[in-house]
Amino acid sequence: MSDLAFTIAAHDGAARAGEIETAHGRIRTPAFMPVGTAATVKALTVDQVRATGADIVLCNTYHLMLRPGAERIAALGGLHRFMNWDGPILTDSGGFQVMSLAKLRKLDDDGVTFQSHIDGSTHRLTPARAVELQQLFGVDIAMVLDECTPYPSDQNTAAHSMRRSMAWAAQCRAAYQGGVGRALFGIVQGGIYPALRQESANRLIDIGFEGYAVGGLAVGEGQDEMLSVLDATVPHLPQDRPRYLMGVGKPDDIVESVRRGIDMFDCVLPTRSGRTGQAFTRDGPINIRNAGFAGDPAPLDAASDCPASRDYSRAYLHHLIKAKEILGATLLSWHNISFYQRLMADLRAAIAAGRLEAFAADFLAQYRSGSDTVG
Amino acid sequence: MSDLAFTIAAHDGAARAGEIETAHGRIRTPAFMPVGTAATVKALTVDQVRATGADIVLCNTYHLMLRPGAERIAALGGLHRFMNWDGPILTDSGGFQVMSLAKLRKLDDDGVTFQSHIDGSTHRLTPARAVELQQLFGVDIAMVLDECTPYPSDQNTAAHSMRRSMAWAAQCRAAYQGGVGRALFGIVQGGIYPALRQESANRLIDIGFEGYAVGGLAVGEGQDEMLSVLDATVPHLPQDRPRYLMGVGKPDDIVESVRRGIDMFDCVLPTRSGRTGQAFTRDGPINIRNAGFAGDPAPLDAASDCPASRDYSRAYLHHLIKAKEILGATLLSWHNISFYQRLMADLRAAIAAGRLEAFAADFLAQYRSGSDTVG
Repeated sequence: MSDLAFTIAAHDGAARAGEIETAHGRIRTPAFMPVGTAATVKALTVDQVRATGADIVLCNTYHLMLRPGAERIAALGGLHRFMNWDGPILTDSGGFQVMSLAKLRKLDDDGVTFQSHIDGSTHRLTPARAVELQQLFGVDIAMVLDECTPYPSDQNTAAHSMRRSMAWAAQCRAAYQGGVGRALFGIVQGGIYPALRQESANRLIDIGFEGYAVGGLAVGEGQDEMLSVLDATVPHLPQDRPRYLMGVGKPDDIVESVRRGIDMFDCVLPTRSGRTGQAFTRDGPINIRNAGFAGDPAPLDAASDCPASRDYSRAYLHHLIKAKEILGATLLSWHNISFYQRLMADLRAAIAAGRLEAFAADFLAQYRSGSDTVG
Repeated sequence: MSDLAFTIAAHDGAARAGEIETAHGRIRTPAFMPVGTAATVKALTVDQVRATGADIVLCNTYHLMLRPGAERIAALGGLHRFMNWDGPILTDSGGFQVMSLAKLRKLDDDGVTFQSHIDGSTHRLTPARAVELQQLFGVDIAMVLDECTPYPSDQNTAAHSMRRSMAWAAQCRAAYQGGVGRALFGIVQGGIYPALRQESANRLIDIGFEGYAVGGLAVGEGQDEMLSVLDATVPHLPQDRPRYLMGVGKPDDIVESVRRGIDMFDCVLPTRSGRTGQAFTRDGPINIRNAGFAGDPAPLDAASDCPASRDYSRAYLHHLIKAKEILGATLLSWHNISFYQRLMADLRAAIAAGRLEAFAADFLAQYRSGSDTVG
């Protein structure tokens, strides 16, 4: 018997602000989940992650099933104890990374067989095994196994792929044994086709999940098309369940998606781009490697309560990144996640105050005024 | 007018425990200085370094003069502000790294000309410039420029090299303008030759310094020979001035050297070996990569107050290092420096209690019982 309490405290247009209560504590929504692929948010301690205001982290089943292995994590007391993170954890099902990272993939109606990108060993992922892996981890929120529909795909291909994912979703539901504060989320697929997205949402609702994700986006389609798909999908999802937009995204993507009723996000962007010298600011992203920062005494954000944002000059961060010092990756990742968490807190406050549209307009105007771009 | 208050609170045999009062606070001695080569103790935030109990860090003039440059650091408010470390800082003079890292070195009686290992640019380091660089950094303790005598060297070569270093020491002394809580340390050279070491000590004392370092060791001579040189050198140094053994060392080197009256140490070992998976323990160093740790739920030191030592299993650390995760380098560096600082605190307490010999015997017996070795 699974259950996940979701309390919506405020609405503002299609947007909502609230709390999800999990077995490992609450998640304030809209929420951004830092990505901790291999049981670590890259370059950060759990105390640093916690200090940003993050309530929940995401880990990748694909990476953890290969190394150190789900049975090993279970023997060591589960993923929370393993990585020393006592808050909620969400894992994906592994399907997305199998398609993007593994070698010699062979997909069939029952699952996927593949070779590890680490050591070439052969593995099999099925809906039942994807659920079993996530239960061995002991995570708060597990995701169904789905096929990530290639982009672009024609409508027939997208339909076939979506229906296979819906069959897998039903198998995952049957295999899942949760508990109070534990949840299995379904994933809407269907490519860019509104009718397929609606069909997928309806099929998932018929099966019944504690939350609903929108998958198959942030795969190169661009923001306009992504938002069109959200417009065609979110209205078909239950009002009283969390909605999770997978793999998104840039700060402006998040603002636009919250306006459309999304409650949860994850993205590698703040950590991955931080490791290469990108820093997010209210005036848009900057590349700290630029020579103009070599003598800049200003911190990234003097008003922040994040040490990485407040206590180090841009000149020092420039130096660290140029010198390939690990601390540069740490400080920029820390700053970027703090920036994202501050944005989420601002969005929650704006929704609670009924002024989301004004906040979004101001934020987007300032953010898009910046000259740099982040990929 | 330079001055550095050094208070010896307790003697135990040749060993001493006390405090050095610098412009940026006190250094409890015997002290271990973590190495922050390029203005960062690699992989650690200043808060993490501080939490280990470290009072002072060492930075490398060679690296900082090349990148970001001493004038830039001065324009940004000095090295303390640049790296956000408000405690004492010691810099070396750059000479050692010029000889080990730079390209196309050309040594003459007035200094050394070399090419940067970073971009091939040509630089000149003289006694006066070495002092100027360190004053631009604004460090608490500066070191004289010396020539690191090659090991092994015959007595004539060692004598010639030492006498050149003594001439440079006098030039550094003349160039140095310190202040209260600021100091310039001389460096004893002379290779493995007791008469040369004594001559070098006497020449430095004649010039007069706020502290005296023993240089030219930890260059491959082995612990027995290193300790023999200390036995031939330390008795010729002033009782009332700090004594610093440069570049040393392994935990057992430190214990043996404290017994002989050394007050200060620096070494890259805890951070460098941490980044590759070596962890120091009371039972000797271990390599966390070893397969035996893959399922080990025990932390490195459950009794430590360092989060890195206490809150993560050896299995998790094994996983991080195997997966080349940055957090592995961070946690092992943090643990190792904590281990070193705990050792220094234990040594200070043992000296204060007059039980250093018993502590050293117990520590060395347990430490040397370990099966692994660290290079």
